[in-house]
Amino acid sequence: MSLVVVGSVAFDSIVTPAKRQDEVLGGSAIHFSMSSSFHTSTKLVGVVGEDFPADRRQILRDRGIDIEGLETVAGGKTFRWEGKYHDDMNQRETISVELNVFERFEPVLRPSHRSARFLFLANAAPRTQARVLDQIEPGAFVMADTMNLWVQTAHADLEDLIRRIDGLVLNDEEAALLSEDDRTIPAGRMIREKFGLRYLVIKKGEHGSIIFHDEGEVALPAFPLATVTDPTGAGDSFAGGLMGYLANASDLGLQSFKRGVAWGTVMASFCCEDFGVHRMTRLERSEMQSRFDEYQQMLSLAAD
Amino acid sequence: MSLVVVGSVAFDSIVTPAKRQDEVLGGSAIHFSMSSSFHTSTKLVGVVGEDFPADRRQILRDRGIDIEGLETVAGGKTFRWEGKYHDDMNQRETISVELNVFERFEPVLRPSHRSARFLFLANAAPRTQARVLDQIEPGAFVMADTMNLWVQTAHADLEDLIRRIDGLVLNDEEAALLSEDDRTIPAGRMIREKFGLRYLVIKKGEHGSIIFHDEGEVALPAFPLATVTDPTGAGDSFAGGLMGYLANASDLGLQSFKRGVAWGTVMASFCCEDFGVHRMTRLERSEMQSRFDEYQQMLSLAAD
Repeated sequence: MSLVVVGSVAFDSIVTPAKRQDEVLGGSAIHFSMSSSFHTSTKLVGVVGEDFPADRRQILRDRGIDIEGLETVAGGKTFRWEGKYHDDMNQRETISVELNVFERFEPVLRPSHRSARFLFLANAAPRTQARVLDQIEPGAFVMADTMNLWVQTAHADLEDLIRRIDGLVLNDEEAALLSEDDRTIPAGRMIREKFGLRYLVIKKGEHGSIIFHDEGEVALPAFPLATVTDPTGAGDSFAGGLMGYLANASDLGLQSFKRGVAWGTVMASFCCEDFGVHRMTRLERSEMQSRFDEYQQMLSLAAD
Repeated sequence: MSLVVVGSVAFDSIVTPAKRQDEVLGGSAIHFSMSSSFHTSTKLVGVVGEDFPADRRQILRDRGIDIEGLETVAGGKTFRWEGKYHDDMNQRETISVELNVFERFEPVLRPSHRSARFLFLANAAPRTQARVLDQIEPGAFVMADTMNLWVQTAHADLEDLIRRIDGLVLNDEEAALLSEDDRTIPAGRMIREKFGLRYLVIKKGEHGSIIFHDEGEVALPAFPLATVTDPTGAGDSFAGGLMGYLANASDLGLQSFKRGVAWGTVMASFCCEDFGVHRMTRLERSEMQSRFDEYQQMLSLAAD
């Protein structure tokens, strides 16, 4: 089934202990759709400036992503972000943010977007996310992401948004801030129940993720990676794998959702293997499937 | 098959944000054997003072643990430990340690211990662990635990010990210290290869554990617990569930080892539900089996 993602398109400059990469293709909607496009047809809604080159558009088209909803602002400049990772790759420091055209982004869904049955609201101001939600036809399965900034500066708007959606993806820090509880399980239960969410996923980076649903919790580990080259976009690749799988399976039951999270986990692991979307541009379906099979086998506790 | 554990027997005084408990039965050999005894017959080797009361011995006998190897030092006092947990239960502070009779503990294995096919060397000075190893008949499957103190103060002895055993259980901090690498996967690979270990398990508390073996890594999550009452002894309960399962299964292949780690995970989750060994003394086989089944089902990614 059709999947729409609304979010940022950016040029990311990334410093890791090993290497520096300038202005690689990034942003939440990019990482999400590069991942989801392996599972279902994906329509991207976002905004860029006139400086966004044709070869970057081609990367998206090569993955079959529908970019009719990618607006170009005349005379505008594309969103830029610069970040630095420290030794253990778990701590990220934002060096600079230039929102540029993303600052006044007012997403407008085309008729073909409005009838989508799956919608992902990538991190943006909760009011912007809500305006997208206003445009989608009723009955779509909607999930969203957010960030600490919105928990702190737009709390009421964020709460209003979360009450209107089906699923939410947070990292452990965001969950602690939103629930005012550092303990992941109580925090997740509280958030899911308070906002009446069908699914909540709390991401713990290298420690995996926990699904909260009405039958309890499901903890799944990350795929063990020996080398993390650049974790930027791993969370959005995770969400893309999850939503892409769900849209393709058209099954929102728990077992299907677990398989979706497993696909999210696998897609996020590929994302971390290179800068930007480099790994995704050369990912083969066969290696993707074989990592999923390996992950499923790793978790199988069946007796020999 | 028979399993012997050599380690500490203690009175623990524990402070958590919710409650304080004085002088509960604890120590590595106690937590290990209370857990392993559900899976296989276990012989405990340790030392106590004259102050160790009959009702505590009875707790062990009630679980079918063989305590013929529990030496009582005339006029001696049992090991005492006092610790405090902070809000998130992940940070533990040692308030006081009185080694007492454990300081001069020279474990002597009886003939019936020496022929054991499974041996667990709970945390102790590496030289003490090595002297136990000298007494066991060749061919036993031996695993050990250690602590930061020995990595720092008895490094060469610890390295000599690790070279002689089959499996090692470390927490993530100990693995980082021993490998001088904060990244868990590279740290684990390095340690396993350097010392020629068949199995290494790195425990990450609420984030689960990772098995390192010659075919790669297996990451397994913790059992999601809403409330952790007291995590003291969780690591030894984990090792007890693992070794108890292996001794009973008599199968040292990877799939069996994974099931052992799953049992360790389940037993550790029960340990955390009450102070000391309180939860273990009232644990029913049926609830233990049903939690294992729930854990296995949680990790199953089979399509519906």
